[in-house]
Amino acid sequence: MPLSPGPFTGRTITSLAQDLREGRTTAVELVEQALAAIAERDPALGAFVTVDADGALAAARRADAELGTGTYRGPLHGVPVGVKDLFMVAGLPATMGSRHFAGYVADTDAESVTRLRRAGAVVVGKTTTHEFAYGPTGDRSANGASRNPWDPERMSGGSSGGSAAAVAAGLVPLALGTDTGGSVRIPAALCGIAGFKPGYGAISAEGVFPLARSFDHVGVLAGDEQDCLLAYRCLASAQLREDAGPARVAWLDPSELFDGDPRVVDAVRAVAESRLARSGLEEVRLRAGLGEEFRETYTVIQSCEAAAVHVARMAQAPELFDPELLERLRTAAEIPGWRYVAAVAARSRLVEAAATLFERHDVLALPTVPITAPLLQQRETQVDGRTVAVRPALLSMTSLWNVLGLPALTVPAGTVDGLPVGLQLVCRPGRELRLFEAAGMA
Amino acid sequence: MPLSPGPFTGRTITSLAQDLREGRTTAVELVEQALAAIAERDPALGAFVTVDADGALAAARRADAELGTGTYRGPLHGVPVGVKDLFMVAGLPATMGSRHFAGYVADTDAESVTRLRRAGAVVVGKTTTHEFAYGPTGDRSANGASRNPWDPERMSGGSSGGSAAAVAAGLVPLALGTDTGGSVRIPAALCGIAGFKPGYGAISAEGVFPLARSFDHVGVLAGDEQDCLLAYRCLASAQLREDAGPARVAWLDPSELFDGDPRVVDAVRAVAESRLARSGLEEVRLRAGLGEEFRETYTVIQSCEAAAVHVARMAQAPELFDPELLERLRTAAEIPGWRYVAAVAARSRLVEAAATLFERHDVLALPTVPITAPLLQQRETQVDGRTVAVRPALLSMTSLWNVLGLPALTVPAGTVDGLPVGLQLVCRPGRELRLFEAAGMA
Repeated sequence: MPLSPGPFTGRTITSLAQDLREGRTTAVELVEQALAAIAERDPALGAFVTVDADGALAAARRADAELGTGTYRGPLHGVPVGVKDLFMVAGLPATMGSRHFAGYVADTDAESVTRLRRAGAVVVGKTTTHEFAYGPTGDRSANGASRNPWDPERMSGGSSGGSAAAVAAGLVPLALGTDTGGSVRIPAALCGIAGFKPGYGAISAEGVFPLARSFDHVGVLAGDEQDCLLAYRCLASAQLREDAGPARVAWLDPSELFDGDPRVVDAVRAVAESRLARSGLEEVRLRAGLGEEFRETYTVIQSCEAAAVHVARMAQAPELFDPELLERLRTAAEIPGWRYVAAVAARSRLVEAAATLFERHDVLALPTVPITAPLLQQRETQVDGRTVAVRPALLSMTSLWNVLGLPALTVPAGTVDGLPVGLQLVCRPGRELRLFEAAGMA
Repeated sequence: MPLSPGPFTGRTITSLAQDLREGRTTAVELVEQALAAIAERDPALGAFVTVDADGALAAARRADAELGTGTYRGPLHGVPVGVKDLFMVAGLPATMGSRHFAGYVADTDAESVTRLRRAGAVVVGKTTTHEFAYGPTGDRSANGASRNPWDPERMSGGSSGGSAAAVAAGLVPLALGTDTGGSVRIPAALCGIAGFKPGYGAISAEGVFPLARSFDHVGVLAGDEQDCLLAYRCLASAQLREDAGPARVAWLDPSELFDGDPRVVDAVRAVAESRLARSGLEEVRLRAGLGEEFRETYTVIQSCEAAAVHVARMAQAPELFDPELLERLRTAAEIPGWRYVAAVAARSRLVEAAATLFERHDVLALPTVPITAPLLQQRETQVDGRTVAVRPALLSMTSLWNVLGLPALTVPAGTVDGLPVGLQLVCRPGRELRLFEAAGMA
């Protein structure tokens, strides 16, 4: 369990919304609870880089005033949210976790932030991102690592590590994140909360600093999948499609993707079996070699696009990068263009190959991350007696869904060694309600 | 003038079609004329790599039989055509001008060849391509250089050099080519004929060996623009749009693109003035720096995509490449992926910037090539007292229209030093009829 509950631990957005509408609490009260909890607990967590007490209280007062005059904006009205420090929020610093943007203040809201505000949500602050969102560990940022509320010596995961830690610690009930290879789902799983990235482009990425444009998704982190859905309905550009009949769910054997911790895989599978199927889960498999094709395609496209974003900064002020990040970017900048061209072609073939996975099923279930949270700064870890590289392990079961642009949800699936593990559910674009339906099966 | 006229010199496809329909000639007679002329003249020109006498005569007999029974397929019915050796033609060798494909025989027709045959055209053979279409000079091919009929010591231009030489020498009235940076228009201009590449994708490239997929276009070469239009109508996937009112034509000052031979530029401009405008041509300019942006964007995207096509062959059998080509491919294979990503982004900006060129005009006029045909294998040439690199000069006014995917036509515009020069006309996609209308003004 997290070290201690926060003001929003165990409170769903639906229940907060009811309390707000029925006068049992106010938006100002919720913001004050969030601010007090952040002041008390965040020094040990590093979830927030910027807290906007004045702005949040002012927005909360407006939300309360509207509620008082009968203007109701929906279930996010008056609800405090955290926003990853990769999104532009007008008037607030946007550092991207980097010294390159020290002192930079955004002058407009990202499209997704505009939508949150329009829905009545109250932005309390910016959450820690791994530097430039380029890392799934969440422990390299100009403002320090975000830490796992279940054990602050362990990583939160990343890159939306601050958003995950803030929600997991109960400091806010909802946070925005981005997910290029798993950056919403990995920290959500490692911190024991729910995280959702929709299909590519389903939430606008306008006003969000890019990592790798082909794979960048905006997503949400919350205590459970229903809160993710509720937030997604406010953020999505398109209507969600309702499907008839029960969702057909299959277990995707993850062994082709990564040779992870068998205790994690077994624990997640047991939860999947008990939650999703009364009479056993059907199983589907990736053909041999597909895991490697996904990794190569992801790595090449992501690396070249990330290098293109940063190459001018690498030339002009390399010393402002974290050394690990700079080394990774330099390696990325050396990948030849023909490999990028080949990867883009491979991606089209992978999309076709993956379509067959959904021929007989609506939803695929697999672990989100096949290990538990490593220690901060740890780059190799022991799994089942083997030494395993942390970064590839963290990304191994999430990044392929970015290559395919498919909606993917992680929900808590118990613990291993007292640390949370996540069950990941994946569907085709437009069928997101299937995921939430499947996650809610019991 | 070409050294001597061939059987199709000065005969338009429209006149051939009339002669065929009215019984003044037969398809077999036309094929026999083509075959005899090829046998006599092609040893000095190198326009053809494969001549299919039996297949052509059989197809011509079928065409005559259909005409005899009143089946008329349209203006190409019974007309002999040459097909660049980059297109698959069922049963015929397809070498791509390379020793890598020595002995390779295609088993199906390219989509564009299917359309030509459906229109009744008779394929007489395959024409020389610069090796793998990777060069605008037309003088490096496993089967030898194609030569300029106006002076066989000079290059035809390329990469569709054989198609241009065959039409210019009157060996066939029509030929298929491909154009990735100017490979239809450059040899057409240097050989004194018409050449047309439509908008990107307007003619299917299915069954055509790729050079750089983002820029590869299928096009046609013929004696004049009306024959190009006639062939294009048979090959295009979509209906052509008719516009009302006269085409508004502007001269595009080419100085931002290349500092070419002023005598060529002046000659082309004089023809444009006299053909296109009774009261002076309006002039438009590219903003400073745009020429360099187009070159960088073209070079990076084309190089990376070409390297991706050939990288396996470069590793397995480098000795089968022409040495110049191998060196160019090796340089191309070293371009980093981030530059490709940046070039793809730059291309979108260039498309926007170029849209303003067409705000007040339907058609832009400029030289096709700002020099006359250099000697075979010449890689530097003297222009106006300066030493100029041949390849960049040849591509300088054509490749930007591949970056933009715009329709572009070249028509003969007289001679300089007894060598042909071409007037290039460019329009927006879907407005191709404007080009042909403008070219036909007098």
